[in-house]
Amino acid sequence: MSGIAPAKAKDLADARVTIVGLGLMGGSLAGALRGHCQSVVGVARRQETVEEALARDLIDWGTIDLERGVLEADVVVLATPVLTILRQLDEIGPWLPKGCLVMDLGSVKGQIVAKMEELPEHIQPLGGHPMCGKELAGIEVAEPTLYQCCTFVLTPLPRTSQAALTLGHDLVEAVGGVPLILDPVRHDRLVATASHLPYLLACALVGTAEAVATRDPTVWDIVAGGFRDTTRVAAGSVNMWLDILATNREAVLEALETYRVRLGRLEQFITTRDAEGLKDTLAAVSERRAEMWPLFSGEC
Amino acid sequence: MSGIAPAKAKDLADARVTIVGLGLMGGSLAGALRGHCQSVVGVARRQETVEEALARDLIDWGTIDLERGVLEADVVVLATPVLTILRQLDEIGPWLPKGCLVMDLGSVKGQIVAKMEELPEHIQPLGGHPMCGKELAGIEVAEPTLYQCCTFVLTPLPRTSQAALTLGHDLVEAVGGVPLILDPVRHDRLVATASHLPYLLACALVGTAEAVATRDPTVWDIVAGGFRDTTRVAAGSVNMWLDILATNREAVLEALETYRVRLGRLEQFITTRDAEGLKDTLAAVSERRAEMWPLFSGEC
Repeated sequence: MSGIAPAKAKDLADARVTIVGLGLMGGSLAGALRGHCQSVVGVARRQETVEEALARDLIDWGTIDLERGVLEADVVVLATPVLTILRQLDEIGPWLPKGCLVMDLGSVKGQIVAKMEELPEHIQPLGGHPMCGKELAGIEVAEPTLYQCCTFVLTPLPRTSQAALTLGHDLVEAVGGVPLILDPVRHDRLVATASHLPYLLACALVGTAEAVATRDPTVWDIVAGGFRDTTRVAAGSVNMWLDILATNREAVLEALETYRVRLGRLEQFITTRDAEGLKDTLAAVSERRAEMWPLFSGEC
Repeated sequence: MSGIAPAKAKDLADARVTIVGLGLMGGSLAGALRGHCQSVVGVARRQETVEEALARDLIDWGTIDLERGVLEADVVVLATPVLTILRQLDEIGPWLPKGCLVMDLGSVKGQIVAKMEELPEHIQPLGGHPMCGKELAGIEVAEPTLYQCCTFVLTPLPRTSQAALTLGHDLVEAVGGVPLILDPVRHDRLVATASHLPYLLACALVGTAEAVATRDPTVWDIVAGGFRDTTRVAAGSVNMWLDILATNREAVLEALETYRVRLGRLEQFITTRDAEGLKDTLAAVSERRAEMWPLFSGEC
């Protein structure tokens, strides 16, 4: 954990934090960090987004100039889609001050951490992935409470100093998150099942209803809470998801394969009228699911 | 619509309504009907359930004796699992007063309506299926507001009189539901996609995570809102679902087949790195899903 260039090891309270990307995730993080650090700088593509972030008091100041935004940062958090993060990691290296901590919020960590490895030696990289979000995108839906109780994965690199990891840890806790340190490859395999697979299933389910609706549009009149919740994630940002599926391809295909086997087993029970087999499987699933979120309390 | 035996054609306000089964659905319906009819009678298997329904003011009086419960009813609503409904339809025929309206809340209508056809000629049958619910079961979670804004499918039989249909219609509107008249076979085909398929997918997804967890239990630490919502229905009552899958077998298998094709198409795009094909499909899905529940307003 001891790197060539130790982080400035500033306390979070003294740090200037630059958030690149002021959508749902970045805008929410910016707002949550206000008051916990020296200042929060926002970088967006469009001036209107910067204005909106200022108007909503999510940032201290903002710019659409990436270089200017990161030039004096103690901490930079890239809160853009995964492929944009990869490109921005290439761009910002020369502009960052010595000891700067560079984090990201991307949903895939393997490729991002590999790209972080190429940052100049005097930079401290730390991958990050908060396990929260909404199916809506944009600064309009950002809210500083988004990270409350949210498991926030951190993927340090071998070169990441203990001081840099501590600073990242403090940042996560400052916004109400619960840090969880994971190896990037392991992270990617786990989120393929926990997050990327649910998205694909939800999309296929909407597609199935669409196919049924071409013959009988009444299907849209009878979809209810079950369908609504099962497909909620399918309304998410397509650009974000395309990047995720492109950069976590192998793990996603592997998760799909395991899923197909499980679904096939359920289908087989129905086809063969194996009520006992079906009952055992469904009872185990129901029990497991009920254990997971017993009261939907929303507490950490 | 003119039957041999017209319904008593009492107004709902003058009707004695008996709800058989005081779980989530029956208990909620009972509570919602209080004040809209002459009296609400509850029939449960266990005396404790009757006591609880009385204590929560969901019924006027209750019994564990099915015959006694339906003997003087103007309306009987069977709110039990589908296979129990089928059995109870066999039992109650001889006990029902002339002109009594018999409804049910079962999630499958074909087999129930066929069984209703065997009721004595002086009875008015009307299939029903409210498109609402929760993943929790039992009178403890019943609430009179459950049917607010809920699409409530009604499947009249050829013998169902207009007066009986009107009474059923009034009952649905009294509890805040939105009546939708459908042919039972068509209903079963549509709910296979809108409701039964989401349940199976959710179960297979929990099973997939369970399989991953046997190698790496950390998957349970990173499941978040997406997984939670996509799998919510998997926590539902196993007995209720077993009955549904047994009695809507063909339509469910057909829906699974359509779904498998859709999911296979998404997988193919990922396997072949067809970003354009994937983008077009995901964008159409996202747009459709966003149209369906634009603001999650919960309004009718």
